[in-house]
Amino acid sequence: MIKVGIYGASGYTGQELLRLLIRHPQVEIAAITSRQNKGLPLTRVFPGFQGLTDLTFADYEPGQMAGLCDIVFLALPHSVSMQAAPLFLGAGKKIIDLSADFRLRDIKTYEKWYGKHSAPEILKEAVYGIPELYRGAIATSNFVANPGCYPTSAILGLAPLLKNRLIDHRSIIIDSKSGVSGAGREPQTGTLFCEVMEGFKAYNVGRHRHTPEMEQELSLLAGEEVTISFTPHLLPVSRGILSTIYAGLTKDTSTVELLRIYSDFYDREIFITIYEEGVLPNISAVRGTNSCHLGLVVDDRTKRIVIVSAIDNLVKGAAGQAIQNMNLLCGFAEETGLNMMPLFP
Amino acid sequence: MIKVGIYGASGYTGQELLRLLIRHPQVEIAAITSRQNKGLPLTRVFPGFQGLTDLTFADYEPGQMAGLCDIVFLALPHSVSMQAAPLFLGAGKKIIDLSADFRLRDIKTYEKWYGKHSAPEILKEAVYGIPELYRGAIATSNFVANPGCYPTSAILGLAPLLKNRLIDHRSIIIDSKSGVSGAGREPQTGTLFCEVMEGFKAYNVGRHRHTPEMEQELSLLAGEEVTISFTPHLLPVSRGILSTIYAGLTKDTSTVELLRIYSDFYDREIFITIYEEGVLPNISAVRGTNSCHLGLVVDDRTKRIVIVSAIDNLVKGAAGQAIQNMNLLCGFAEETGLNMMPLFP
Amino acid sequence: MIKVGIYGASGYTGQELLRLLIRHPQVEIAAITSRQNKGLPLTRVFPGFQGLTDLTFADYEPGQMAGLCDIVFLALPHSVSMQAAPLFLGAGKKIIDLSADFRLRDIKTYEKWYGKHSAPEILKEAVYGIPELYRGAIATSNFVANPGCYPTSAILGLAPLLKNRLIDHRSIIIDSKSGVSGAGREPQTGTLFCEVMEGFKAYNVGRHRHTPEMEQELSLLAGEEVTISFTPHLLPVSRGILSTIYAGLTKDTSTVELLRIYSDFYDREIFITIYEEGVLPNISAVRGTNSCHLGLVVDDRTKRIVIVSAIDNLVKGAAGQAIQNMNLLCGFAEETGLNMMPLFP
Amino acid sequence: MIKVGIYGASGYTGQELLRLLIRHPQVEIAAITSRQNKGLPLTRVFPGFQGLTDLTFADYEPGQMAGLCDIVFLALPHSVSMQAAPLFLGAGKKIIDLSADFRLRDIKTYEKWYGKHSAPEILKEAVYGIPELYRGAIATSNFVANPGCYPTSAILGLAPLLKNRLIDHRSIIIDSKSGVSGAGREPQTGTLFCEVMEGFKAYNVGRHRHTPEMEQELSLLAGEEVTISFTPHLLPVSRGILSTIYAGLTKDTSTVELLRIYSDFYDREIFITIYEEGVLPNISAVRGTNSCHLGLVVDDRTKRIVIVSAIDNLVKGAAGQAIQNMNLLCGFAEETGLNMMPLFP
Repeated sequence: MIKVGIYGASGYTGQELLRLLIRHPQVEIAAITSRQNKGLPLTRVFPGFQGLTDLTFADYEPGQMAGLCDIVFLALPHSVSMQAAPLFLGAGKKIIDLSADFRLRDIKTYEKWYGKHSAPEILKEAVYGIPELYRGAIATSNFVANPGCYPTSAILGLAPLLKNRLIDHRSIIIDSKSGVSGAGREPQTGTLFCEVMEGFKAYNVGRHRHTPEMEQELSLLAGEEVTISFTPHLLPVSRGILSTIYAGLTKDTSTVELLRIYSDFYDREIFITIYEEGVLPNISAVRGTNSCHLGLVVDDRTKRIVIVSAIDNLVKGAAGQAIQNMNLLCGFAEETGLNMMPLFP
Repeated sequence: MIKVGIYGASGYTGQELLRLLIRHPQVEIAAITSRQNKGLPLTRVFPGFQGLTDLTFADYEPGQMAGLCDIVFLALPHSVSMQAAPLFLGAGKKIIDLSADFRLRDIKTYEKWYGKHSAPEILKEAVYGIPELYRGAIATSNFVANPGCYPTSAILGLAPLLKNRLIDHRSIIIDSKSGVSGAGREPQTGTLFCEVMEGFKAYNVGRHRHTPEMEQELSLLAGEEVTISFTPHLLPVSRGILSTIYAGLTKDTSTVELLRIYSDFYDREIFITIYEEGVLPNISAVRGTNSCHLGLVVDDRTKRIVIVSAIDNLVKGAAGQAIQNMNLLCGFAEETGLNMMPLFP
Repeated sequence: MIKVGIYGASGYTGQELLRLLIRHPQVEIAAITSRQNKGLPLTRVFPGFQGLTDLTFADYEPGQMAGLCDIVFLALPHSVSMQAAPLFLGAGKKIIDLSADFRLRDIKTYEKWYGKHSAPEILKEAVYGIPELYRGAIATSNFVANPGCYPTSAILGLAPLLKNRLIDHRSIIIDSKSGVSGAGREPQTGTLFCEVMEGFKAYNVGRHRHTPEMEQELSLLAGEEVTISFTPHLLPVSRGILSTIYAGLTKDTSTVELLRIYSDFYDREIFITIYEEGVLPNISAVRGTNSCHLGLVVDDRTKRIVIVSAIDNLVKGAAGQAIQNMNLLCGFAEETGLNMMPLFP
Repeated sequence: MIKVGIYGASGYTGQELLRLLIRHPQVEIAAITSRQNKGLPLTRVFPGFQGLTDLTFADYEPGQMAGLCDIVFLALPHSVSMQAAPLFLGAGKKIIDLSADFRLRDIKTYEKWYGKHSAPEILKEAVYGIPELYRGAIATSNFVANPGCYPTSAILGLAPLLKNRLIDHRSIIIDSKSGVSGAGREPQTGTLFCEVMEGFKAYNVGRHRHTPEMEQELSLLAGEEVTISFTPHLLPVSRGILSTIYAGLTKDTSTVELLRIYSDFYDREIFITIYEEGVLPNISAVRGTNSCHLGLVVDDRTKRIVIVSAIDNLVKGAAGQAIQNMNLLCGFAEETGLNMMPLFP
């Protein structure tokens, strides 16, 4: 049993970590923090935990937290994580940071898209946490930068193509649609029920902060610099991201042939499911799970491929992938505590 | 490991049984049937099972099914279950029937509300499957009539009051609201997305077939004949039943005192959670779980009690309670395979 | 053409007044105020008005506002309205107040449920604005207290029974379900999309502030003091209130007979629709309209009547009824500007 | 007053025609047909019309229908319209066909995507009914092929660019998301509430039947043959289409410059709204209206333009545009009966 702490546990990502960690067989939750809910029982903030736990929010300083835990999840906003991370690392603790603060390897890129970085010296210690791509590096690390939700869906959807040089990397368009939980639990007009229900919109077109994160990873996969078009949209659902990805093919091929390449690439990956020809993913099939479902169509008329990638933004896009990374960091079987069935309907 | 079969597995109740049984540690799913999906893989009908199972629908006659299974779940419409049940019982198999066919102990009541019964001779063998009330009888039985979703929410909400003779049993009003999955997966105009979304209505007022089932059980609890007002409504959600129950109090009491009585009544019941004063259940706190959440308010102005009871209609209201009953029938720990966390948001 | 002002126009009620008044043939919108959106075009706050108006929010003091308008709608929170109302009345303007500040005729009741009242001297000048009950008084008044949304649905549903002394007034139970827009547009955790979607709950059981408003009006109709049980619930829809109302009948009668009494009572009321036997209202049938749809069932088993009353909380429950009152105050045909068709699906 | 008939009036498009035509000041609805609802009052099928009309469904043969009406709307499935249209034309009536049967000018293309055409001889008489592009031809015609919902959103979004040769026409990608009402009111598993709610998926990728319709019209605008990528998705909303359209720019330009070109192109078009820089459409801003809202972003990093086009699929995408066409055919002011305000929230 390892002792786990969650820093910033009162948001949707925090509660999702709790949902999964409470049932994790090798974990004891030692501390959860929330400045604004200090002293309150978890069940007061998330009534669904009634009867399942008697955890209470504290407002520990990093020093106290480090004394209580072997591993700390940082479920904090960007620019806040970077203040806490060095303290935990310095105390010899393992960290999984769910913010954007340590995902970009180039400090200039970070500062261009997010603002000043206060801990650049530890940036190179962080491993980008997509286990399907960086399993070995994660397993030998102490510090994981857990990927963004949009990037997870897009990178997993494009990796087999870029690695195999099957698409023109200048032609990539990523049209993504996300559920509202991705916007967090802070009250704001734009995420009120009445604003979102029966609505649908694009936002931050051409300038969403997940763009450089995707480009960094897609470039590494391609072996050359990749620039993408990325358009996020707000779906009137609570959970789920579906990315529809377009790219021009560099050679003649077929849906079936590419599906075989995907299946080979993700062979034995327990959290990746490749659909057969003629079937495409729906976010409802991954709700509550750590799975990424991938389907694709080769369009002979336009010589383009269309890839559809579906994840649950709170699980594979955040808390679930974080626990998958924790399992690697701690030497547990990678799927421990992550064998949830999808909730449908 | 026992061998389990599901008869009529292509509806929402069937898929929910599968969601839970696939992860049940003492169960092997030996057969699933669906006349219309015969020969199709389960994943074609419910894509969420991709990568989790390779079960295929068959169209076994009861005789074949009995040869394959130790216990059979009947997820069939009423009047169809009554044809299959005698064959399985005769073959020495255990049955959990999720239809209404064996819930009413009085054949006349059944025939008044549902129509002709073709197997009245086995009616008395069936035990009404609310474990919190009939645990002993269920454990020694072979044949469980799994309760209706509305009755489960109402009976659990009223049992402590009736047992303790705290309310005027002529004053009971049950105002229930159910998610759409309760109406099943057969295509019909009334359950289309566009008909339900942004809508809300009452239906079958004063004549819903769950009325006699509630009255039977509430009368047994009260020790005298109870007649209720019951109004079901259709909520624009997929899962969940919330029943708001009104009754006149027969003596002066308080919210706190009654909450204590509820806590005592359901002491050590793992699937029942009693809320503290000032907090009331939301169906979102039980989504995907086998729990029943209960809260209540004593209204001094009117001398009435208002009880709020929340369940997931597909779990505690159907498949989950069925598995709870299976665990009892088979001598497993009652909560085996049922420790799901609620999915929120 | 009269000149109209809306005080507090940036909430859902304010925008609904605008939606209806922009198309009203005898109205010119002279001013709209919003402290926080001062100077912004209306279209920036409500993009749906793009191309339909070039109104801009101002932050007028009441004195300025009175100089610009013949009639003022107060779409303000309670306790704020009471500060503005005397100034407009003193300036000889007509007022329609959509807050609760002038609905209760007894100052003690107001102060018990809401807190200190700063303008009790003008309380008796306000007319309670349900035109179907107080048409004459409204038409000769300058000052309308526009009813609450829940009370509108309940009072219209019960008036024919109480006037005709057909129910035991101690037996009234009002179980209401409201869409989220009733909670306003101020950001708060409880009305975020993720909190409400796929959820349903009761709130403020036995202590909602609309209770005394209902009791005041129901008592006037009954000719004796009425005490009710009232339970509001939060529906995962944007618009609509459905009230399911229970009462014990004082004499033998039938659904058909009572429907006839309702039809007589509301004869020639253009905004009231009485359903025929066997059909009950759905909030989706009144979405966007000023109609109240009423259906009922006599339950012979329990000697109770169940009335179902459906309105759009933002229209008949707020802005639409306010304009109906304005039409009366100004001598326009009562339905002017209110002939909207329901939006379905 | 002209006499109007609706053939196939029991679907969502039919009811939307009724919603708008009942309030149209120059129209009398002479007949509505529905085979399966023959003899039923409209209010039984669509309760929202209670109190607004006493229309009843008939099952008239085309000959009878022609005798009753001056103009007929065909709200029929494709391949059924083509049987009825020649009879109405032959009887000297005006027709607005909402099916796909007369939209494609090339019979071979029709038969490749839809199947055998039984009335090719009248194909050339039909005018494609986007008034913003073909106003003159429509006004002098008797026979309008009303456009598909997806094509309306895409063609309006791309017309200014293609006419001005600003994009590489081989680079066009149209990623569209539609509400469920587009799938019609026939009960089917895929459009049940529980299947759609909290879900999102792509479908018919690369092979949706609206593709050739878009290509026909985009080619006419471009003056050369255009081949597109088109991906439709199913949104969990009742109404609305949002198309996110990508294309490579052929010259350096800016968001502001292109917005000016759009504003010029659609100058004085009452149903087209061009958004200013930094603001993008949401389907909730056009709900219930005949408007098309357009916004765009030039992405300097990729030299692509992203256009966002929002319509209500049942109004500008079907019934509203049909009435706009009727107004032109009949010489009424084009906006008659179409000045609806958007319903929000």
